[in-house]
Amino acid sequence: MSKPFMFEKPVGMRDTLPAYYQTKNKVRERMEKETDSWGYLPIETPALEYYDTVGTASAILDQQLFKLLDQQGNTLVLRPDMTAPIARVAASSLKDQAFPLRLSYHSPLFRAQQRDGGRPAEFEQMGVELVGDGTASADGEVIALMAAALKKAGLQNFQIAIGHIGYVNALLLDVVGSEERANTLRRYLYEKNYVGFKQHVKSLPLSSIDEKRLLSLLKLRGGQEKLKDAEELVQNGKAAKALNDLHQLWDVLESYGVSEHIKLDLNLVMHMSYYTGVVFEGYGSKLGFPLSSGGRYDELLQNFNRPAQATGFGIRLDLLVEALGDTEELPEQTCILFSKERRKEAIEEAGKLRESGKRVVLQDLQGVENVDELSEAFAEVYYFIGKKQGGASNE
Amino acid sequence: MSKPFMFEKPVGMRDTLPAYYQTKNKVRERMEKETDSWGYLPIETPALEYYDTVGTASAILDQQLFKLLDQQGNTLVLRPDMTAPIARVAASSLKDQAFPLRLSYHSPLFRAQQRDGGRPAEFEQMGVELVGDGTASADGEVIALMAAALKKAGLQNFQIAIGHIGYVNALLLDVVGSEERANTLRRYLYEKNYVGFKQHVKSLPLSSIDEKRLLSLLKLRGGQEKLKDAEELVQNGKAAKALNDLHQLWDVLESYGVSEHIKLDLNLVMHMSYYTGVVFEGYGSKLGFPLSSGGRYDELLQNFNRPAQATGFGIRLDLLVEALGDTEELPEQTCILFSKERRKEAIEEAGKLRESGKRVVLQDLQGVENVDELSEAFAEVYYFIGKKQGGASNE
Repeated sequence: MSKPFMFEKPVGMRDTLPAYYQTKNKVRERMEKETDSWGYLPIETPALEYYDTVGTASAILDQQLFKLLDQQGNTLVLRPDMTAPIARVAASSLKDQAFPLRLSYHSPLFRAQQRDGGRPAEFEQMGVELVGDGTASADGEVIALMAAALKKAGLQNFQIAIGHIGYVNALLLDVVGSEERANTLRRYLYEKNYVGFKQHVKSLPLSSIDEKRLLSLLKLRGGQEKLKDAEELVQNGKAAKALNDLHQLWDVLESYGVSEHIKLDLNLVMHMSYYTGVVFEGYGSKLGFPLSSGGRYDELLQNFNRPAQATGFGIRLDLLVEALGDTEELPEQTCILFSKERRKEAIEEAGKLRESGKRVVLQDLQGVENVDELSEAFAEVYYFIGKKQGGASNE
Repeated sequence: MSKPFMFEKPVGMRDTLPAYYQTKNKVRERMEKETDSWGYLPIETPALEYYDTVGTASAILDQQLFKLLDQQGNTLVLRPDMTAPIARVAASSLKDQAFPLRLSYHSPLFRAQQRDGGRPAEFEQMGVELVGDGTASADGEVIALMAAALKKAGLQNFQIAIGHIGYVNALLLDVVGSEERANTLRRYLYEKNYVGFKQHVKSLPLSSIDEKRLLSLLKLRGGQEKLKDAEELVQNGKAAKALNDLHQLWDVLESYGVSEHIKLDLNLVMHMSYYTGVVFEGYGSKLGFPLSSGGRYDELLQNFNRPAQATGFGIRLDLLVEALGDTEELPEQTCILFSKERRKEAIEEAGKLRESGKRVVLQDLQGVENVDELSEAFAEVYYFIGKKQGGASNE
């Protein structure tokens, strides 16, 4: 390997400069305030986890995991998602707390990238997990909270697509008969490659009725009326249960007054293999890809020996900031330039201005190469130079 | 390797539970507000950096680095400190911005531990870097800001020990004559193993005068008067320059009104090999080990092709929270328990209470295993159950 150039960062790694940091931080604080007010308690988990516990449970593709060996020879991973670590915490550090648990987080996640194609290998995500509650009220709560958090963040136009992994599975299995064949079709749906899905369906040895059933799945997007169409496509216990979940969820979302943001999308298949029921994705108006997602995962907790139904969502801060549009301007700063003899006076003035809420850079003239260039960066500059009293401003 | 138990975390890794998170977060916000008001702009750098750039520049012991290979075969490290990454940013993304640069950060750092001896392998640090200013005013500013941040965090009693790496080096080299022998002595000082230092000094083939000079170094702790004693121990240009730096710095710190927190400690040797001048450590009253540290590093930036004098500090949030003592209580929460028929009414009530500033858990009765156990966690519980109007409270 050639030595990387001294300024380079690893593939997909980014620096966060002040204006962007400030925008992201404001968005995060507003959303955290919302999750706090809904009674979710914030937790953090370590950046590194054992591959054998959280790494495999997280169900992120192996090639997307950053892996390393610790000094004891165990394989560690940089946390690729937060749901599996929180499941571990719910089953260990918080094992004495009664269900339901409402937990929130705000953490960087790590996914290795093959090449620098614009996707970050480290990104911040905030979200919640509602553990130990299997009701439609719980599904509705996390979706309504996601909507409320996006609104507080300042996102005006967004849509939340809702599906059910149980329905997709029931239909696919009913038509193609084997998990393996269903998997191939699921992958097209996960990749949102609907042309590929259609072509693949047409290549299968199916009756024209079954072919039509599969192709009709792609039309199951829209309002509540699509549930009726969905019912006609497959009639078995699992499909009926899934559609009943969605009917109930729709009622809950209407009670929350968020149904204007909701559409059904029964094509929705998530990359996280642990989802078992309702799944959803949030879209900003400017983006063609989801900036948030979530769903029900009723089987993950049993991996950690505390079986529980659970649901949650995650919002990617980088994509949300992108959807919001412009990065905010940095707040104005005042500069006090001083010479040594008047340092004490300058320090006192800076203290007063800071008390009054200003952001004040206090700068020794001797530490400045180019005073004009420096001054340009400030809204106002005060001079405490030489032996005169008082400071003149160049506002 | 045997498979780790499902709940285990890697050596030195911790979960942060809600009460601790809240305390830490409040402390961080207060300190960030302070660094903001002094005109420091917040930045973030990636968790992973190239070993060949930031890894080697950071001067953390190799065995403390978490290393991994990326998919291109380069060695990466989990950032072990923030000074080297910020130097990289100052010389790349911010290369067009005039010096001095005032930057702040708040980030987890990573240091591998051999065994779980209580030291964390991941810990949060906040701090600042003042890049491109070689004046005593700059050294004084970062020390005064560190003191101000610790005060805002709520730390009442703290001391800041100030030394100068140039003075220690000048004395040691003047007496023992070689870098190698000086290094051995420096290691004892870094480890604060003063008994070992004395024994080693006595084992060296030195004149009684030189032996006494080295042993006298250990007495150079206290008030400004120690500068006079220090002057007598070694008289060469480098020592004189270092003592002059400290005299000037003392003046600056008096102007800031923080000298009550300051003591001189000319034994101070930091583990970061990049320090070149003034160095310092902050101690809380309850702790025998430093919770913050910093100093001048005038040669690090040239590794990144933008030579500049610089100084900064870092405060470890875990140690600061420990020094502050008790973790705060979680804020009180209200619970609204509802049955399905009255869900809409319960949602409206929750919205009103949240608007009024309360933290409200909205819970479907069907999602609760044990209502009594659940109720205990709340300051007040409202019931929206059955067909009656209005909610009764069990306050």
